[in-house]
Amino acid sequence: MSSPCSFRELCRKESFTGPTSGILPGYVQANLLIVPRSVASDFEDLCLRNPVACPLLTKTAGSAHVVENHAKFISDSFFDIRRDFPKYNIYLGGKLYQQKSNCMDEWSDDHVGFLIGCSFSFEDALVRAGLVPANVTQGRNVSMFVTTKFLDSAGIFHKCPYVVSMRPYKPSEVDKVRSVTRAFKRTHGEPIDWGFDGAERLGIEDLQKPDYGDPVEMTDDEIPVFWACGVTPQLAITTVGPLIEGFVVGHAPGHMLVLDSTQMF
Amino acid sequence: MSSPCSFRELCRKESFTGPTSGILPGYVQANLLIVPRSVASDFEDLCLRNPVACPLLTKTAGSAHVVENHAKFISDSFFDIRRDFPKYNIYLGGKLYQQKSNCMDEWSDDHVGFLIGCSFSFEDALVRAGLVPANVTQGRNVSMFVTTKFLDSAGIFHKCPYVVSMRPYKPSEVDKVRSVTRAFKRTHGEPIDWGFDGAERLGIEDLQKPDYGDPVEMTDDEIPVFWACGVTPQLAITTVGPLIEGFVVGHAPGHMLVLDSTQMF
Repeated sequence: MSSPCSFRELCRKESFTGPTSGILPGYVQANLLIVPRSVASDFEDLCLRNPVACPLLTKTAGSAHVVENHAKFISDSFFDIRRDFPKYNIYLGGKLYQQKSNCMDEWSDDHVGFLIGCSFSFEDALVRAGLVPANVTQGRNVSMFVTTKFLDSAGIFHKCPYVVSMRPYKPSEVDKVRSVTRAFKRTHGEPIDWGFDGAERLGIEDLQKPDYGDPVEMTDDEIPVFWACGVTPQLAITTVGPLIEGFVVGHAPGHMLVLDSTQMF
Repeated sequence: MSSPCSFRELCRKESFTGPTSGILPGYVQANLLIVPRSVASDFEDLCLRNPVACPLLTKTAGSAHVVENHAKFISDSFFDIRRDFPKYNIYLGGKLYQQKSNCMDEWSDDHVGFLIGCSFSFEDALVRAGLVPANVTQGRNVSMFVTTKFLDSAGIFHKCPYVVSMRPYKPSEVDKVRSVTRAFKRTHGEPIDWGFDGAERLGIEDLQKPDYGDPVEMTDDEIPVFWACGVTPQLAITTVGPLIEGFVVGHAPGHMLVLDSTQMF
């Protein structure tokens, strides 16, 4: 695993099927969503209208190779979105149908693949800035919440809620936490809200009962800080799933594509 | 008033200081926000993170002339954001301080001007599609509401609510209304939500008590349809006003800049 290219080759051979957290630290990782062409334009609109929750990096054009937009962030070398992620979630009718290490059977010329920014890189930056997230210290997955804040609707995508990740910090740390993550414009950027009043604005009732991930302990002098979360687009797919004909494919949570770039600005 | 250029000349000479609704129909109109350079980067981030509510068309670079980004939507001929709008709102400390027909005294080299998409053009398209908004039929200003949906925070811009405009339609018309306005990607685009459940999601309690504009009569078979509204950025300025040193200038509501372009796609 000396390079992203050789790591993707391991995934392509199905020699590696695990999560990518901690793999080749510093390299950008990307989320995946493959949808039937009939809903691709609606999904792209959803991303463009909601760039903080659904930061679109690039999309395929007719073949399995990523060719359009933002090419500078993407590999020069060959990669294949059907095989280069370690694990895939296959959806049918908005329901998780299967987990597989490739989606060769589900992909067709009538699908479009989207790569979406992933927050792994900004968490690394927080650690380097001495603002180690509590979930890292406590060895837990980050807490994620489905909120009452809805994406701005786009085509079939209606009533799709924001999912947020939460990391507790002291109020005095919030300015620095915001500055550090602000730079990651293609991977959710700075927090969308914070504080207990922020939790209320987002309709989060119990910070110890996350909808995804693990509960994270907070001390009395900490407040919650909320970032838009990459689970949002996959939840949008399941929300409108019955309206979608054919397979939808996402990366299995935590099992991302490792790109050749070390920055995302 | 044979052309946008000659209309802007009238404004520059202060021979025209009225609202621009119905002026040179079909030409794109733009909203204005001029902020001190110290908060310009935060304001630009706010727009980029919330493109539906704050659709940024272009910004100035050091002088009064619009030069950067999206130049194809903008005039080839000379225009001056300090004088070419018919009327300006001058803010100080987040409070409306004065209305003037130019902002020559308030503008300085230490200001940055932003042009923002305006929904006049999509209302025209609705009329042409036979979906005449009730406010037009009733000869009233559109109803606008401050919502409990907040922009994704950016720099000093925190806890800034979406403002929405509301136009009532029959449920059977909603699909067509969405399609017609979807194309106006730089001027708020399709509705962000609709229906009485949509009003609830947006925290709107009484549809007959708009925060701006006029109440619009609805029939029993109509539901409210909500678009993001260009008042949002000006409300953001007043929300964080005490944090901003120096003059902020907006167009006076309804008094827009008329551009040379007839489309905004």
